[in-house]
Amino acid sequence: MRATLDFLLNDWLDVEALTQRPRFADHSRETFDSVLDTCERIAREKFAPFNRLTDTEEPRFDGKRVHLPEATHAAMQAYVASGMLAASQDYELGGMQLPCVVEMGARSFFSAASVAMGGYAMLTQGNAHLLMAHGTAVQKEVFAKNELAGRWFGTMCLSEPQAGSSLSDVATRATPDGDGYADDPLGPRYRLKGNKMWISAGEHELTENIVHLVLAKIPGPDGKTIPGVRGISLFIVPKKLADTEGRLTGERNDVALAGLNHKLGYRGTTNTLLNFGEGRFPVRGQAGAIGYLVGEPGKGLACMFHMMNEARIGVGLGATMLGYAGYLASLEYARQRPQGRPVGPGGKDAAQPQVAIIEHADVKRMLLAQKAYCEGALALELYCARLVDEQHTAAGETSAEAALLLEVLTPIAKSWPSEWCLEANSLAIQVHGGYGYTRDFPVEQYWRDNRLNMIHEGTHGIQGLDLLGRKVVMDGGKGLALLADRVNRTIEGAMQHPELAEHANALAQALAHVGRATKAAWATGHPADALANATPYLQAFGHTVLAWIWLEVGLCAAQREASDFTRGKLAAAAYFFRYELPKIGPWLAVVEARDTTCREMQEAWF
Amino acid sequence: MRATLDFLLNDWLDVEALTQRPRFADHSRETFDSVLDTCERIAREKFAPFNRLTDTEEPRFDGKRVHLPEATHAAMQAYVASGMLAASQDYELGGMQLPCVVEMGARSFFSAASVAMGGYAMLTQGNAHLLMAHGTAVQKEVFAKNELAGRWFGTMCLSEPQAGSSLSDVATRATPDGDGYADDPLGPRYRLKGNKMWISAGEHELTENIVHLVLAKIPGPDGKTIPGVRGISLFIVPKKLADTEGRLTGERNDVALAGLNHKLGYRGTTNTLLNFGEGRFPVRGQAGAIGYLVGEPGKGLACMFHMMNEARIGVGLGATMLGYAGYLASLEYARQRPQGRPVGPGGKDAAQPQVAIIEHADVKRMLLAQKAYCEGALALELYCARLVDEQHTAAGETSAEAALLLEVLTPIAKSWPSEWCLEANSLAIQVHGGYGYTRDFPVEQYWRDNRLNMIHEGTHGIQGLDLLGRKVVMDGGKGLALLADRVNRTIEGAMQHPELAEHANALAQALAHVGRATKAAWATGHPADALANATPYLQAFGHTVLAWIWLEVGLCAAQREASDFTRGKLAAAAYFFRYELPKIGPWLAVVEARDTTCREMQEAWF
Repeated sequence: MRATLDFLLNDWLDVEALTQRPRFADHSRETFDSVLDTCERIAREKFAPFNRLTDTEEPRFDGKRVHLPEATHAAMQAYVASGMLAASQDYELGGMQLPCVVEMGARSFFSAASVAMGGYAMLTQGNAHLLMAHGTAVQKEVFAKNELAGRWFGTMCLSEPQAGSSLSDVATRATPDGDGYADDPLGPRYRLKGNKMWISAGEHELTENIVHLVLAKIPGPDGKTIPGVRGISLFIVPKKLADTEGRLTGERNDVALAGLNHKLGYRGTTNTLLNFGEGRFPVRGQAGAIGYLVGEPGKGLACMFHMMNEARIGVGLGATMLGYAGYLASLEYARQRPQGRPVGPGGKDAAQPQVAIIEHADVKRMLLAQKAYCEGALALELYCARLVDEQHTAAGETSAEAALLLEVLTPIAKSWPSEWCLEANSLAIQVHGGYGYTRDFPVEQYWRDNRLNMIHEGTHGIQGLDLLGRKVVMDGGKGLALLADRVNRTIEGAMQHPELAEHANALAQALAHVGRATKAAWATGHPADALANATPYLQAFGHTVLAWIWLEVGLCAAQREASDFTRGKLAAAAYFFRYELPKIGPWLAVVEARDTTCREMQEAWF
Repeated sequence: MRATLDFLLNDWLDVEALTQRPRFADHSRETFDSVLDTCERIAREKFAPFNRLTDTEEPRFDGKRVHLPEATHAAMQAYVASGMLAASQDYELGGMQLPCVVEMGARSFFSAASVAMGGYAMLTQGNAHLLMAHGTAVQKEVFAKNELAGRWFGTMCLSEPQAGSSLSDVATRATPDGDGYADDPLGPRYRLKGNKMWISAGEHELTENIVHLVLAKIPGPDGKTIPGVRGISLFIVPKKLADTEGRLTGERNDVALAGLNHKLGYRGTTNTLLNFGEGRFPVRGQAGAIGYLVGEPGKGLACMFHMMNEARIGVGLGATMLGYAGYLASLEYARQRPQGRPVGPGGKDAAQPQVAIIEHADVKRMLLAQKAYCEGALALELYCARLVDEQHTAAGETSAEAALLLEVLTPIAKSWPSEWCLEANSLAIQVHGGYGYTRDFPVEQYWRDNRLNMIHEGTHGIQGLDLLGRKVVMDGGKGLALLADRVNRTIEGAMQHPELAEHANALAQALAHVGRATKAAWATGHPADALANATPYLQAFGHTVLAWIWLEVGLCAAQREASDFTRGKLAAAAYFFRYELPKIGPWLAVVEARDTTCREMQEAWF
């Protein structure tokens, strides 16, 4: 995995070029490598050996406290000590000014070693980054800095028991906290009441405090809230209150753990139902959780999307690395496990010794599929992270383009690994045979863990609606046109290489097909017509994007001296083009036809 | 589910027609219905409420005994009391002379309610059926009859720790047990030594005895065994020895539980590693498990395939009903869960009340996909069971055709539901959103349970090799030709119905494509060329078979008076033809091209 990561970062994405930019001027290939080395080591020593333990000893709530394994505490301490929480931040903030793409590479080790333990860090970083972008100076100082230093961890509180995908229906309310509410130095002070569901890292004792970022609605003078997402505001609701110096005041806020969710996987991250402001912990003499407004009232969702977009790429990386971990486990197993014999012209000769199962064509197929899914997905996530760096540090036009491309790619970066690296995990089980179905091998846990990723941070269906309903049509299709331009550049380059020309042609056709399907979907102008098949569209779009990424990676490999490593990359690219890309045909067919089979199905007919 | 089952059995498969045959002459629609009623009730009362319990309280071995929940004992008692174990047997044997297809329908209730508990019965029946076909009169009397009466349960012991898919490499040995070994009234008596892995129901105290059917090799005079499957013989190895009257002699056989496997799912069935003959329980003064030869030496695998073919259809039914159970759970959830709003010409109006999620096109898609997968798979399994009845009770030519068709369809009956009803379970989780990922809802367990089915009783890869390597080429392709003939008859019938003509055309093209791909795969005559893509072939063949089944079912629905029920069947058929059947294109493309990407991949390139 390290060799592939190094190849993608250095040979393909040329991260060293970033050191030409002022922000990264102190960095070099050596400093980047050393960050990767450190993270690889911490993940290997503090995360991986305890991944199964975090599953079997899932978080336990005794009515007062949540208990986590000691190993989780130790892993978090090591992570915090590494300084990675603030890695991309300014030096003044204790950061390293590390490019996002290198940080993403470093984070991949933790996701592969224990995705659930890595969740705490991911949420804390996302939370702090949001505050750095949208918080006041004091909010940054008090909340974000404590998070970046790892003294406090963070959460994002969007869903409610009755409102998951439909954030319009958030029922948590925020009302001004007394007459002087607007003058609190920590931000306009409100009292929040409501329930938040599926809150990862919502309760634990890993850190002295927890910073909840909470979506809630501020009622108007008539006591009513504005329907829809326009009525949503964003609040900082710390578990324990703090002063303007970031010190705990000793006051417990009115945020109570109603219960832990007991999940299929991802058990190492606590997942909670939180009650805000129900009076379990009255604060300053009354019920209601104290929260400080972030940004403007009614603009909460826009702020939250800062964190959501980051979280979506983070989910994609987590899904990718779960797939990758399964791939490596099944590859190792297939190399060692003797079983069966090669099939010769006359069948099999039982008198011959058995061979390792990696010799069988179907096992190779299952390994190659995993390689194509997981290495491709990793390349995509790193590419997106590289776009974040472009957005933040490149010149005007380039920066704007990167931001636009990132918008179009985010639904794919989130959904594609969630679907296909889960499939990779299933193949990893299959390679192991019966052993893979036991808890003595790691692959079943990866598969269970990975099943979450199509659900959280916007379900698969939501990603499809985002892509076809918004991203490819916004600004008159500017984002899609930009992507097509990039893809065409890759195609042109690949046409020069005989072994890639076949793939380049296939990609050109796929791209044209996606373009036609996009137009056909919207031909009537009715969202209901277009969006009825948004998920198959998402799948086809995703496979096309991954084919492009594989052509990019293949092109990079083809330009290097041939070796086992480059042959592997070219074989995985070939697998993707021959076995995977053709799948877009059936998906796009229903999109183009605006097939009504599903939407016209009636409830009574089921 | 009952309405669909009744429709498939009566309207489509016309099971009542079977009562014209002498064997089933005492039966009627009423007796069939009453069997279904009874099984539906037992499954509802004794199985379904405890399905989660069998998962959370998985079998525990205290070093001496295996402990199962009391609920499992109660469920088994109720099942045995129903007489279903012997349902298809002769009246003289305590059976009901029930057609296999009705028995399969009845069994579906248990698989849906608790597939793991149902496993004990399935194995016992399969074991007894094998003995009824291949055992001596005494073996039938002693072992099969006790199994059919539910006093003893049975197992099938094929795999070993070092030999799963590769039965050639079975290392368990059987040597004659003393000079008079050939004269034992229970059958030629051997001593077995070896280890058997993945043995479901291999140890428990649900019954007073366990009848193991064990594959082992008999060494020649030189002490060597014959390589390959030709050297394999089959033995009855009871846990406790019995006399010729079927009474326990009080002697414990030398079969010891080495350990329980701790699985991802299917936990309600004990799964064991058994040591045969290691001396843990010396019997008649020496180590070695006493076993009685079934059939001829060296013909063991052929006998075992009697049970395996039955078990494969049983696995298919189990996978189907797990999918079906998830479909019904998610359908109920989708009808009750409010979330979001319909998308109108101008988008969504947040001021409107929320709707049940079943109103959303993408949720309908996920439910319709499940319906198409699971009802289609159930129809296929019942069709196969109907073929078993034809094979056993129809006249010569018809019987032979049924047997041949069954051979071709068995790999599909086993593999297709294992893959696609697992996908249905994943969709059932997705419909539930975050709730589906918790252990508070049943769908995550179905998904875990179902993951086994692509592995046991011959992996997916093995089914592909069986289909493309044997079934479609045997007898010069006679089986494939027969299937094509049946499919063409359905196409002709469907062409008469305007709403089915489009599907009929699509199926005709698919069938022709499968035919071309089969020829192209074998064009060089080299098994390695043909079989490199046996799994994609299996997938394409399976989707084509299911399309045929759906056209059959659609035709049957179209001939009835239109109702919500028939519209649902026609919608599911339409879904299958529009969203699923086109997937065969990419699968067959690599088969036709004899694509070498996978087989030429080298270990060092991964």
